[in-house]
Amino acid sequence: MLDDRLLLGPGPSNPYPEATEALTRPVLGHLDPAYLALVGEISDRLRAVFRTANELTLPVSGTGSSGMEACLASLLEPGDTIVVGVNGYFGERLVQVAMRLGAEIVRVEAPWGTPLDPGDLLAAQRAHPHAVLLAVVAAETSVGVRNDVAALGTELASTDTLLLVDAVTALGGTPLEVDAWGVDACYSASQKCLGAPPGLAPVTFGERAVARMRARSTPVSSFYLDMGLLQQYYQASPPVYHHTASSVLAASLHAGLGRLLDEGLEATWVRHERVGKALQNGLTDLGFGMVADEKARLPQLTATTLPSGKEEAPLRRRLLDGYGIEVGGGLGEFAGKAWRIGLMGHNATDRSVATVLGAIRDVLG
Amino acid sequence: MLDDRLLLGPGPSNPYPEATEALTRPVLGHLDPAYLALVGEISDRLRAVFRTANELTLPVSGTGSSGMEACLASLLEPGDTIVVGVNGYFGERLVQVAMRLGAEIVRVEAPWGTPLDPGDLLAAQRAHPHAVLLAVVAAETSVGVRNDVAALGTELASTDTLLLVDAVTALGGTPLEVDAWGVDACYSASQKCLGAPPGLAPVTFGERAVARMRARSTPVSSFYLDMGLLQQYYQASPPVYHHTASSVLAASLHAGLGRLLDEGLEATWVRHERVGKALQNGLTDLGFGMVADEKARLPQLTATTLPSGKEEAPLRRRLLDGYGIEVGGGLGEFAGKAWRIGLMGHNATDRSVATVLGAIRDVLG
Repeated sequence: MLDDRLLLGPGPSNPYPEATEALTRPVLGHLDPAYLALVGEISDRLRAVFRTANELTLPVSGTGSSGMEACLASLLEPGDTIVVGVNGYFGERLVQVAMRLGAEIVRVEAPWGTPLDPGDLLAAQRAHPHAVLLAVVAAETSVGVRNDVAALGTELASTDTLLLVDAVTALGGTPLEVDAWGVDACYSASQKCLGAPPGLAPVTFGERAVARMRARSTPVSSFYLDMGLLQQYYQASPPVYHHTASSVLAASLHAGLGRLLDEGLEATWVRHERVGKALQNGLTDLGFGMVADEKARLPQLTATTLPSGKEEAPLRRRLLDGYGIEVGGGLGEFAGKAWRIGLMGHNATDRSVATVLGAIRDVLG
Repeated sequence: MLDDRLLLGPGPSNPYPEATEALTRPVLGHLDPAYLALVGEISDRLRAVFRTANELTLPVSGTGSSGMEACLASLLEPGDTIVVGVNGYFGERLVQVAMRLGAEIVRVEAPWGTPLDPGDLLAAQRAHPHAVLLAVVAAETSVGVRNDVAALGTELASTDTLLLVDAVTALGGTPLEVDAWGVDACYSASQKCLGAPPGLAPVTFGERAVARMRARSTPVSSFYLDMGLLQQYYQASPPVYHHTASSVLAASLHAGLGRLLDEGLEATWVRHERVGKALQNGLTDLGFGMVADEKARLPQLTATTLPSGKEEAPLRRRLLDGYGIEVGGGLGEFAGKAWRIGLMGHNATDRSVATVLGAIRDVLG
């Protein structure tokens, strides 16, 4: 049996070779000047991919979910109101995390597979002008849908409501403009379109988010994910010890981001767009359906329903066991009905498309 | 300038060669049966080093601090009382994390550098019999002190108070017996005496802790660090998706634990004891002082005051820049006054002792 994997699920993707090599660089202590300099360079590279000048831009020591929680926990206080767009699993997760933090939730929904209407989100904010946050997932990994967040920031800039964007699957794969779009806070993950292994969550806070955090009247319930403490650790001089961050993961993310920026951010968007289309055309030819409408369909993550009469789990298992290819199963409403095929970062290539279509053709028989 | 490091601070230590090699094994998806099997084996190995049969034993996706928070957040509800032993920085951190979670704190103190009196801790529990937790750091990394936790569990077993032990620096370095000592919950970190890189926090919960978690009337405020959700992810069948755990770190921890168990847990205790003594004797010969009394002094982490008239920061910097050797500075009361020298896991060797003593001799001039 193959024990390596072509990772074409919803992430992790296979890291860039440079990111894998960097894993074995000498381990550095969490307060070593060389480690802090490395994080400084990671922050610079993250600013380039987030398209922001935000000072408070750094990798949180956890997976994408920890990035979501770092943002919500640092920006919300108990009793605060948050407007959340929900059209898939990760919008639902924003609701769950915010509820646990004691927030009042205003849900704005669209059917799973359909993009959120920015007008609905803004109307909900106008109905709840005291809302502290409006949160949207830019690329809903559960259904392969792109939500339009470009239009929101300008409208919210004149209100007291901050825009929080989940860019876990979006960052490095499809256009995202933190500053130009007026995004106040944004989080992502290392293991998708950034081409590094899982374990770090890039987060960026703009001035309004930093001010909101500083104006809290209650402490952040999480010590580990308090963005204010992380700022004191990574960006104060001298650094204030917070946790034993992993230079292993940092070196790898640094290398993945370097490779991405060498190619050029816009070039990677074009690459993801091209191979995603090729995959979707190939799947359609094989009788698969598309969960998302073409206009709102992501290229880096395709949610696809199987040809009628085909059971998803055994076929997915045959791809894994027989070909060493991972594709994802459906989440939530699409569990048992759909696959999620990712072409992200190092895996966003014509070779991946040819490989997975060829293997799918085989297992369909 | 040397860009590799001999890591003789309070952690990370240099990983075992097997743990470094394992970092470049093929990345696995977080729901891949091969990844879940790997975590199952890690749990088995962790049970062996924790000396427990606890079913709920797993690596949390974060550093040691995330392990501390996973335990406190999962076991405490707002308004609950916790008795905390404080004789150093990490006891203080237990207080800070518990306070943020809305707990009432009963502090039991000893001067930094002096072990906690188990009688004081038990007396505080008797005075607050409704306390949900009594928490103690087994090996206080900030001052190199061993706290006696062996005596506590038996006494607490007949009460409603659970024993939580911080074993971040203890595990794999000095004796710790989760089951025999009646420890209800315990957390550690991958990068110290376990000989793997930072990024994972082993946690174990006994039956009383699981029952306590199940009896909660409020949700755990942290989604990311909710031990109940992690149990559903790693130990339910089928696994319930929670976060994109890093197979890279898991493979490395698995290898580090394998190396440790091949040597034998008790043999590693003996090795740490021997080299720690050798270092402490050598430092004393060079005019250094010991922060902790001999009876309560840890072998794997030595807190040591510099010979009179020697400034710590420039000398520590010379060790780093000239020799590529990291030792830690003092924390809290000992900032600017002491060093913390770790001999942990792969670095607990005669070679490390000879190297660091030789380099110190050089820089003292």
